[in-house]
Amino acid sequence: MLEQLKQQVLDANLDLPKYNLVTFTWGNVSAVDRELGLLVIKPSGVRYEEMTHDDMVVVELATGKVLEGEKRPSSDTATHRALYLAWPEVGGIVHTHSRHATIWAQAGRPIPAWGTTHADDFYGEVPCTRAMRDEEIQQQYEWNTGEVIIETFAQRGLSPSAIPAVLVNSHGPFAWGKDAHAAVHSAVVLEEVAYMGLFSQQLTANLPPIQQTLLDLHYLRKHGDNAWYGQK
Amino acid sequence: MLEQLKQQVLDANLDLPKYNLVTFTWGNVSAVDRELGLLVIKPSGVRYEEMTHDDMVVVELATGKVLEGEKRPSSDTATHRALYLAWPEVGGIVHTHSRHATIWAQAGRPIPAWGTTHADDFYGEVPCTRAMRDEEIQQQYEWNTGEVIIETFAQRGLSPSAIPAVLVNSHGPFAWGKDAHAAVHSAVVLEEVAYMGLFSQQLTANLPPIQQTLLDLHYLRKHGDNAWYGQK
Amino acid sequence: MLEQLKQQVLDANLDLPKYNLVTFTWGNVSAVDRELGLLVIKPSGVRYEEMTHDDMVVVELATGKVLEGEKRPSSDTATHRALYLAWPEVGGIVHTHSRHATIWAQAGRPIPAWGTTHADDFYGEVPCTRAMRDEEIQQQYEWNTGEVIIETFAQRGLSPSAIPAVLVNSHGPFAWGKDAHAAVHSAVVLEEVAYMGLFSQQLTANLPPIQQTLLDLHYLRKHGDNAWYGQK
Amino acid sequence: MLEQLKQQVLDANLDLPKYNLVTFTWGNVSAVDRELGLLVIKPSGVRYEEMTHDDMVVVELATGKVLEGEKRPSSDTATHRALYLAWPEVGGIVHTHSRHATIWAQAGRPIPAWGTTHADDFYGEVPCTRAMRDEEIQQQYEWNTGEVIIETFAQRGLSPSAIPAVLVNSHGPFAWGKDAHAAVHSAVVLEEVAYMGLFSQQLTANLPPIQQTLLDLHYLRKHGDNAWYGQK
Repeated sequence: MLEQLKQQVLDANLDLPKYNLVTFTWGNVSAVDRELGLLVIKPSGVRYEEMTHDDMVVVELATGKVLEGEKRPSSDTATHRALYLAWPEVGGIVHTHSRHATIWAQAGRPIPAWGTTHADDFYGEVPCTRAMRDEEIQQQYEWNTGEVIIETFAQRGLSPSAIPAVLVNSHGPFAWGKDAHAAVHSAVVLEEVAYMGLFSQQLTANLPPIQQTLLDLHYLRKHGDNAWYGQK
Repeated sequence: MLEQLKQQVLDANLDLPKYNLVTFTWGNVSAVDRELGLLVIKPSGVRYEEMTHDDMVVVELATGKVLEGEKRPSSDTATHRALYLAWPEVGGIVHTHSRHATIWAQAGRPIPAWGTTHADDFYGEVPCTRAMRDEEIQQQYEWNTGEVIIETFAQRGLSPSAIPAVLVNSHGPFAWGKDAHAAVHSAVVLEEVAYMGLFSQQLTANLPPIQQTLLDLHYLRKHGDNAWYGQK
Repeated sequence: MLEQLKQQVLDANLDLPKYNLVTFTWGNVSAVDRELGLLVIKPSGVRYEEMTHDDMVVVELATGKVLEGEKRPSSDTATHRALYLAWPEVGGIVHTHSRHATIWAQAGRPIPAWGTTHADDFYGEVPCTRAMRDEEIQQQYEWNTGEVIIETFAQRGLSPSAIPAVLVNSHGPFAWGKDAHAAVHSAVVLEEVAYMGLFSQQLTANLPPIQQTLLDLHYLRKHGDNAWYGQK
Repeated sequence: MLEQLKQQVLDANLDLPKYNLVTFTWGNVSAVDRELGLLVIKPSGVRYEEMTHDDMVVVELATGKVLEGEKRPSSDTATHRALYLAWPEVGGIVHTHSRHATIWAQAGRPIPAWGTTHADDFYGEVPCTRAMRDEEIQQQYEWNTGEVIIETFAQRGLSPSAIPAVLVNSHGPFAWGKDAHAAVHSAVVLEEVAYMGLFSQQLTANLPPIQQTLLDLHYLRKHGDNAWYGQK
């Protein structure tokens, strides 16, 4: 079942250590099959070196029920489900504790759009969620982590297509895209701008965000109907 | 004698360069056999590239007497012994000068629990010991290093199981766990949170620690009788 | 056509990941044949791992017209062209988003000449361009990026031979040299001094630039008619 | 001539990229044969990847005359000579532009002894030289670089055996030891404490140096007649 999607999810998970986004097992990637209503996700607590195609777990999107796989799915599966159910345009999701995105998440601060590296993939600042309430943590924590992400985007009027990542307060980043590969791409770019922004704001106090016209130019040349960048 | 434990201790020592925790020979891992009252530890000043199973030194826990091994045990052996003797729940100990944990130790500051990466393995801030007194340094320095760690945990009412690491003032970190492998795990996580905390507190002045409910959730899902994380 | 130049440009492009100057495809190197009035440049959005000699694109310097190559040239080609046309002494150009040079570019600050590492290859501070005007961004953005670089050098009376790099405001670095290889050399040194300067100015507030005599000595022993450094 | 010393100097030079102390050719190691009055040093501007035993250059210590070798000796040879002639206890010298030691040198600040990592190899702060005078730069610059290092140690009453490194103002580090291998060891430790000190002093403003008794204990257990650390 879903052999091709499992391979994509495995490959995307193996990209996490390749791009230095994870320590130990601290990361997971999933992808969704919208027609079947299923998602494929990394098993919980399994080492990347030992992970195989068959370890990928198939989960029913609507219920969270495991349909295939001998291992338990990632403990963050409910967060992935909440996001897929809220956002039909998302096909792949990644969660890591990558160092610099996590630094901003721990500090509870969004990452402003401070340069074209940011603008090439994020159409504005990457938001940070509010602190979760005690009852949100004590009951259905992983599902509520998804809910607070969705709330963050809704309250700010943000599109998950235009801003394919978020910082979860005191925790770390989630990133996404049209598929598992694109989700990892978002996570790599996020880590890059998290690193650069950290030091740019040390060099120039109260650094303003990139000009709107430059943000528009860079984002829109790569995204949307009129994109012209690359070989496509 | 203790062939299996020697192999575990060798493997754990070789993990130190693998996880970028050491320069030259600046690190050592030991493990204890409680029934026999013996500990196995890295020899002093031997390069990781050349270290073999047979280089591991067997030391009597109660006395520090070398029972097997042609090389001298790590100069920090007395610190390891003091901790094993005080804390029966500890099975493996690691000492390194890993860069970022050492940065905090040199600054004489504890590492607050600033995120879930921390909370997943440390149930609260990682303490920093007080400066040692001249007489503690001049006589039995390595043993007294252990004593001041034990004092730090006792005075703060901390459990070495719940906080499996410490920063020794002006020196560097010790970390531990139920065995040598778990001790290295603690040392890797400590280095990770030391790095991230350094920059999180630059982004947000007077950054408060993680909420208690979130600390509880993350620590308790991985540790204790009701843990549910991973494949176990 | 231009087989030797294509190989040089390919080699120089492959040096970018080797020197840790790029993530994904975020970088490009070109070189020019002044006699033929042609430039060779990396194709747009192609992975370094898969890039071959035949992927290099030949472009007419005066017009930007693609003369050879099945792929589209780098989207930054017009910037390269503007620089080659304005500066006859330049034979190779590189653009990256290397982390530390980009940090300064995002902060909108020039990199002062703070040490001999800088002085060995840059005869004074590396300037940062002004913010581009909306109309410069909205029409012929890549060409205008070149124009604002040229303006920056003209207004400050700088020689592109003596200062072989620039920071484009809110964007990232361009660097150059007598050929593609020399351009990459400039980009590597720029990244190095960007890293070191970031932290030197944290250690000493209002750090003054290097003494003029020391700048002269280091730059002139490696560059110009009286250079004596190295084996030549 | 001096085949064994040439091999030691080659090996020590090749250790520089291995320990991430150099970019391009920015580093050089030499060693001295006191009986013959000769030193062996890296050639100028040769890539580490291509360097062989036969590239090493033999130079007369007293005069600087090249006695063997087809390539020119490192442009820093006169600095090495000045130090060997002033300090009979030194057998090997290394110069690099390693990132963090250079950051302190550019900032014109000594590195205080802030921890036991420092104390294990440096018996006090690593000094930074004064700015050189114009005439010292314009005539015999490399020799005068040595002279200003010697002056720094003389004026502060420092022993080059006890403090085996210096920061040359606006330039970078020199380090040394009883032979070429020991010199590289000093350079590695210097880079490590330069990194850690940079961030320790950010965590704690006006951080005082390590206690004298702890400095004594750590330095003296590894150095001098009563050293007991390691297998010797």
